[in-house]
Amino acid sequence: MQLKNRSQILRLSALGVGLPKNIVLSTDIDKATGNELGYTEKLSHIKQRYYVVDESASDLACIAVNDALSQSDVSLNEIGCLISGSGTMEQAVPYNAAKIHAQLDFSKPVPSFDVNMTCLSALRAIELGTVLLTSGGYKNILVVSSEIASAGIRWSDEETGPLFGDGSAALILSRESGRPFKVLASHFETHSEGVGYAQVRGGGTLLPPSKISGSYKDYGLFEMRGKDSLRLVNKVLTTFLDTLFKKSGVRLKDINWIVPHQASFLGLEYLRKKLEISTDNFINIISTHGNQIAASIPFALHNLLQSRDVKGGDRILLFGTSAGLSIGGLVVEFL
Amino acid sequence: MQLKNRSQILRLSALGVGLPKNIVLSTDIDKATGNELGYTEKLSHIKQRYYVVDESASDLACIAVNDALSQSDVSLNEIGCLISGSGTMEQAVPYNAAKIHAQLDFSKPVPSFDVNMTCLSALRAIELGTVLLTSGGYKNILVVSSEIASAGIRWSDEETGPLFGDGSAALILSRESGRPFKVLASHFETHSEGVGYAQVRGGGTLLPPSKISGSYKDYGLFEMRGKDSLRLVNKVLTTFLDTLFKKSGVRLKDINWIVPHQASFLGLEYLRKKLEISTDNFINIISTHGNQIAASIPFALHNLLQSRDVKGGDRILLFGTSAGLSIGGLVVEFL
Repeated sequence: MQLKNRSQILRLSALGVGLPKNIVLSTDIDKATGNELGYTEKLSHIKQRYYVVDESASDLACIAVNDALSQSDVSLNEIGCLISGSGTMEQAVPYNAAKIHAQLDFSKPVPSFDVNMTCLSALRAIELGTVLLTSGGYKNILVVSSEIASAGIRWSDEETGPLFGDGSAALILSRESGRPFKVLASHFETHSEGVGYAQVRGGGTLLPPSKISGSYKDYGLFEMRGKDSLRLVNKVLTTFLDTLFKKSGVRLKDINWIVPHQASFLGLEYLRKKLEISTDNFINIISTHGNQIAASIPFALHNLLQSRDVKGGDRILLFGTSAGLSIGGLVVEFL
Repeated sequence: MQLKNRSQILRLSALGVGLPKNIVLSTDIDKATGNELGYTEKLSHIKQRYYVVDESASDLACIAVNDALSQSDVSLNEIGCLISGSGTMEQAVPYNAAKIHAQLDFSKPVPSFDVNMTCLSALRAIELGTVLLTSGGYKNILVVSSEIASAGIRWSDEETGPLFGDGSAALILSRESGRPFKVLASHFETHSEGVGYAQVRGGGTLLPPSKISGSYKDYGLFEMRGKDSLRLVNKVLTTFLDTLFKKSGVRLKDINWIVPHQASFLGLEYLRKKLEISTDNFINIISTHGNQIAASIPFALHNLLQSRDVKGGDRILLFGTSAGLSIGGLVVEFL
């Protein structure tokens, strides 16, 4: 989507992150699966990721929210709306944002809702947050993404077992307070011929627990057809990016930083090489965090803002793919 | 939220609905539960509802979408974005809109995402659809809500067992084609002190199937503390409505039609009497459809537009409460 009023200046008041206490090294997975030390890291190119022990997704969300609030001039009671953008649900009913809301000490009945497009949930939630700010009504919007991927990992699957990690991120978007930015363009596409390439079959009304006799475990585990996904992304990527850049009025060479969804090490390297971006300008945190589902893009953005010198005038491409199969991107300019 | 540009005229191109083939009479439930004929209807004030046999939530969604498309000047390939607003997931991954997208014959990779705030999902999705239309980018947006409540019913609970029904609704919102309307105001609040009053504990990362030994059935069933919910709604309703009407610039006496979420017969009657609205101006379809979760508001709106003479200048209050606990409303004026 191309915003009508492209001159609209918004502000990023703060960006916080949350992690479980428990670090899981790839050598821990080697030991648990009876493999030679080094096998899992060689397979996944991931050194470590974080798994919850006793933290819930809303617990993790609140760590990120409090981290963001601690850096922000906007207080909790100046928040006008809470949007949760996660690819996983904490429970089937109610929605994630209500559970997060219940842990925050709002003195007003701040509205809340969830946005879900699996791994792109947070990116779409950020985009909707900017649209809701520009359309009036809200002055400050809190966008939170919190994922517990470890709950649905199929250990016997070497492709996805070591890939995922838990974590959260929270942004405070504001009309008045914080670092100014413009959204130059946003663009999303759903290529649903790939709808079955990544799924958790259970947890909903298609294969409800009430209709399944015996164990339900397998219905809650993640299944992926990785090669089919990559083939479809490869097929649609160039046209997608051309459209996004055309909408934005800038070209790839005008982009200073790329913040991709941390899909997989190989996926990230494929993208980086295809776009001919140096490793310094391309945020890759998968080796230390794994794929944190929808939290991965704002978590990687946090890494960019913490570790690099992002200047006024710099343009950032936030980009990813998700189960669905969907593909999406935002081109943002910091002022 | 008060839209900045209140003069913005949008259009409702079409509104369609979908129902499962299978009607379940309250006398069928009497027979199945071994009660005297008439007991379930006396208890619930519901004569019948619809339950799926072999239809999925996305199947039901597509019935409503095709119903809407058959009445619309907008064709499927003129749709710019698909938003699914449902309180239940079809499966944990991917999201509902992708599954619906996969059943529709789009010739373009139309973007899609889910909005969830349980029973208010469709209302918030409609509101976001209008905001996305007014902010540019999209010319036509398809909003779909499809719910299979029957998958999570706890039969032993006389309060909720007979209450719910399955069904779907789809709206095509447009900038150019269809019946013109204005959104005078929208307002949502989350009162998360009631977060535990209505829930399905399982289906997500809090009590994931992978961590539960033996049967998972109970984790997928709906649980409600009805009296606590009503008490909280009663406490916040007047202030909520005052705020919504203040934002809209019109008062309750200027409202011609009320389209409420079909929460329960007693809840509807409580609301109708509190607002002093005649039965003719207050849409109540619970006795024939049950509570269709988020699909209930657009389904009831469909009933209004089919059965009453809604004229230019008429104002409609779309209103409901949801697990979370959230409360929300839209004041719309047809032109």
